[in-house]
Order: sequence, then structure tokens, then C-alpha cells
Amino acid sequence: MSDSVRIVEVGPRDGLQNEKAIIAAADKIALVDRLSATGLRSIEATSFVSPKWVPQLADAAEVYAGIARRPGVHYPVLVPNATGYERARAVGVEEIAVFTAASEAFNQRNVNASIDASLERFAPVLECARADGVRVRGYVSTVLGCPYQGVVPVADVVRVARALHAMGCYEVSLGDTIGIGTPRAAREMLRAVAAEVPMAALAVHFHDTRGQALANILACLEDGVRVVDAAVAGTGGCPYACGASGNVASEDVVYMLEGLGMDTGVDLDALIDTGRWLSALLGRENASSVGRAGRGTPAG
Amino acid sequence: MSDSVRIVEVGPRDGLQNEKAIIAAADKIALVDRLSATGLRSIEATSFVSPKWVPQLADAAEVYAGIARRPGVHYPVLVPNATGYERARAVGVEEIAVFTAASEAFNQRNVNASIDASLERFAPVLECARADGVRVRGYVSTVLGCPYQGVVPVADVVRVARALHAMGCYEVSLGDTIGIGTPRAAREMLRAVAAEVPMAALAVHFHDTRGQALANILACLEDGVRVVDAAVAGTGGCPYACGASGNVASEDVVYMLEGLGMDTGVDLDALIDTGRWLSALLGRENASSVGRAGRGTPAG
Repeated sequence: MSDSVRIVEVGPRDGLQNEKAIIAAADKIALVDRLSATGLRSIEATSFVSPKWVPQLADAAEVYAGIARRPGVHYPVLVPNATGYERARAVGVEEIAVFTAASEAFNQRNVNASIDASLERFAPVLECARADGVRVRGYVSTVLGCPYQGVVPVADVVRVARALHAMGCYEVSLGDTIGIGTPRAAREMLRAVAAEVPMAALAVHFHDTRGQALANILACLEDGVRVVDAAVAGTGGCPYACGASGNVASEDVVYMLEGLGMDTGVDLDALIDTGRWLSALLGRENASSVGRAGRGTPAG
Repeated sequence: MSDSVRIVEVGPRDGLQNEKAIIAAADKIALVDRLSATGLRSIEATSFVSPKWVPQLADAAEVYAGIARRPGVHYPVLVPNATGYERARAVGVEEIAVFTAASEAFNQRNVNASIDASLERFAPVLECARADGVRVRGYVSTVLGCPYQGVVPVADVVRVARALHAMGCYEVSLGDTIGIGTPRAAREMLRAVAAEVPMAALAVHFHDTRGQALANILACLEDGVRVVDAAVAGTGGCPYACGASGNVASEDVVYMLEGLGMDTGVDLDALIDTGRWLSALLGRENASSVGRAGRGTPAG
């Protein structure tokens, strides 16, 4: 496995939106700028969902407008509907992310709509994006299990991923939202999707709720995926006190990939520093093992 | 990978000896008995090293004498030398574990002896064990890196593993003591050792210092290893505050193995309960992700 992997850094969005602490817009801007300085090429910067739903990211426009656009770096933002798209475009967003669950029960609870209704809602957004030259990334959540309906049939994941790709998403990220999956299930799900959507258009998105994320990523890398979502400092939950629902930590992923001889273009030391800085800002333990322990390169 | 894996539970020894908190002998006995009730077949019960070195396990004789011997379960104890062997035999120990590092620098600092001197010290112990019908397990530590000398050549790991096996160890456990390895390094090391020692006589022993343990175990399972050391509740360090030096958590390993369709014979729910009970006793956060989050089997 000696090739390159693109990390999609989701800390500023999927991470921060699920943290209890709310940090200032200036700190969010500093976070994105520190992340782009590490060599990351994709950084999900914020979310234009309603501030009623996600007060943590109510300052999306201010944050997006404030970040230093580094050439060659993409800064997607989450967009729930046409209104969000318009707000995003008003500040010059050039890449968006749309989302739906693979679980009908989850989608109903999350956005009060069926999966098909969600896809229909996004259709005009994707049409506008195409006309505007805006790139669109698609998220499929609950790909390995759902807290409400339990098992999520792989066929449902395939159907939603195929639909998002067919609608124009250049990349579809497959998310184990509740961190319940293990390597065989992850691999079988990925294989089924890759039979319908090109592997080069797929990403994997694991939460480390049950400590399985890196093993799942390893299994998916072995099957050919080369895009991995991760969040600096493992943000996105209250991992120790409340049951570890955070994203897999970018530092831990990059550490593993370096060990596998796979290039990420990311300066791990700078990433570790950023995760420590962010953890201090959030006033919580760093949820990255590498962030806590350090790279530990032995002398000699 | 549909077959069975034996977990060697090392929490009562490798776990507790590295915890700050010291728990009562009665609690240690209860721990071992709870563990054997989960279906675990190998439980390292304690250590007969000098209490000067490991005050946490100064009550080794009392603990060993107190545990309920469950038929079919092995209760190895760590033994550093002939004196430790005699103390262990005095309370009826039927399986011991001996140890040396693959790193010369580590062995010097750890036991103030060269690797060859350690092996020589163990030779009479293994002779006595053979005469007494006592089984012997061997540990090789620092197999993927050393905090003092840095890189540990794979050839040194192979040499030490081969020596322990040749001296009569029925199983040699390969330990990434400082949790620095990643899957490719782990796999390459395992393959090199397995070229000299039968895979069926090898175990892997990972610490989760940098979050890599499950990924490393997965890689080694793919190469054929079927014995995995782990510690309930991820004991063996102060993982959050002090840099995550604990053993990989048994709960997390069993959860992954169940997902891989591999049989461990362990009741995961009972193991989770035991880890939570132990964490409360130690007065610290449970270092098992599965222990914190729960199995989370979705309804339906």
C-alpha cells in the first residue's frame, strides 16, 4: 500500500458541532488556518444549517469569510437545503457537502423527512451548484447501523450512495455515525458500494465510539479506498465522560498512514500541535491518542 | 477469518502492575474469578517479581492461593528468576511466564542485565519447570521500538523469540511495549518471527498508546496469529492524563473479533461489566472504548 491518501479534515464542522463548548469565531478561523498550514488539502470549514439546530456553528458566514484561502486547499461547508446554499454562496463558498442517512428511521428523526424526500430536497441545490461551478460532496450516514432501526441493510447504503453520486456528488463519504462497525462489516459495505460507485469517488468516515475506527480504516484501505475523513483531536463528542462518540482523530489516522508508508502530505507534528491547542481551547481532554502520547519517535 | 482466537487476559498482572492505585488482595481475587467466569481460558493472575520492584503485586501468593481454579482455565504468573519460581510453586502455580526485551538498551534498564544474561538466568527456571510439568510462556518486549535505543532490528526480535521457544516456552508473546507500532511494521515483524517459530506458538501483545492496537491486531490476524494478549478496561497506565500507556482493552478486542466472526468463547457483556467494576475500584476512567460506550447493539 505505498501510495497517497487524502484526509478530509472535518473537525471544524463535524467535530465542533458536537462539542459542548462553543468557541469564538476568531478561534474557529484560527483553527482552519492552522489546519491548512499542516498540509491538509480538504478542510470542512463550517455548516450552514440553521443556527437553531446547531448553535455551535451559528457564525458560519463570519468564519468562512475570515479564513485565509490557501491555494490548492478545498474548504467545503455543510449545506442542508437551498436556503443554506444561498447563505453559503453569499460568502463565496466553492464546495458544499450534502447529507442523508442510509437508515430511514435515522433520517426521519434527524431531518424529519424520508430519505427520498431528502434526496429530492437536494436536487435543486445540486443543479444550482452545477450551474455555479460549485463542487458537491455527499455524506451517507448510519452505514453500519442505526440507533433507531438497528440493522441498516447494505442495499440501502448502496442505493443512497449511488443516488448521491448520480446527482452529481464528486465524492460520497460513507459514515459509521454511531461507531458501531467492525472491519469485516466495513469492508463488505465498502465493496458493495464500490460495485456501483467508483472507488475513487468514495471516502470513509468513522467514529471511534468503540475504538474500531483505525482497524476499519485499515480494512477499507486494503480494499482500495484512498480518502479518509477525520477530525483533529478526535472532536465531535464527549469521549470519556459520555461514551466516546467523537470522530476518529486525524493525528491517529496520519500516524497509521505514515507507518503504512502512505503519503498524506500532512505535517504530523503541526497537526499534533493544532489538536493540543484546540483541546485546550475546548477545555477538554485531547481525544487523539497520538495527540496525548506524542509521536514518540525513538532516538537512534 | 472464521475461526477461534484465544485471548490471554493480562489485566490482573500487566494491567494492575502499572496502575497507580493499589487494590486489595480480595479485590484482585474477585477480579480473576470474574474474568474466568466470562469464559476466558488464559488469565495471567499475578507476578512473583520482588515487591520492591512492583509493590502493586506484593500480595502475589495470597492472590494466587485465593482464586477459584476453574477447570480448563490457565492462570500463568510472571516469574523473574529462580526465587520467583520457588515462591510461585509454593502456592501451586502450574504455568509461569518469563520475559526479556528484544532491545538491549531496554533490557539493561529494566532488569540490569543483557538479553543473553536474562536468557541464561531463565535457563534453570525452564529446566525446573519442565521437570515439574509447569508450562512456560515467554514474553518478548519492545518488539517494534524502544524508548532508549529507538529502532529495534527485527532480527533481534527473531533471535530472542527463537531462543525462548527453543528453551521450552510453549508460546511466545510479542509485545509492542511502548505502543509505537503500526500495522505494516507489526505484520512484517510477525512474519519474520513466524519464519523461525511456528505461528501457532506465537501471540501478539499491543499497548494502545497511540491508538494503533486494534489495527495492529487486525493485521496480525490476517497473517494468521490466533492468540492475542489484552487487559480488561485497558488497564496498565494512566491513559488520559499521562499519555495512554495501557494495554489494549480486552472488551475492544472481543468486540472486533465478534464482528470478524471469530469465536473467543468470551461473554462480552460479562467482560464489559467486569471492566466497569474494575474501573470503579481503581477510581479512574474506563480505558476501554466498548466499556465506556457499551456494546450498543441496535434494536431490531
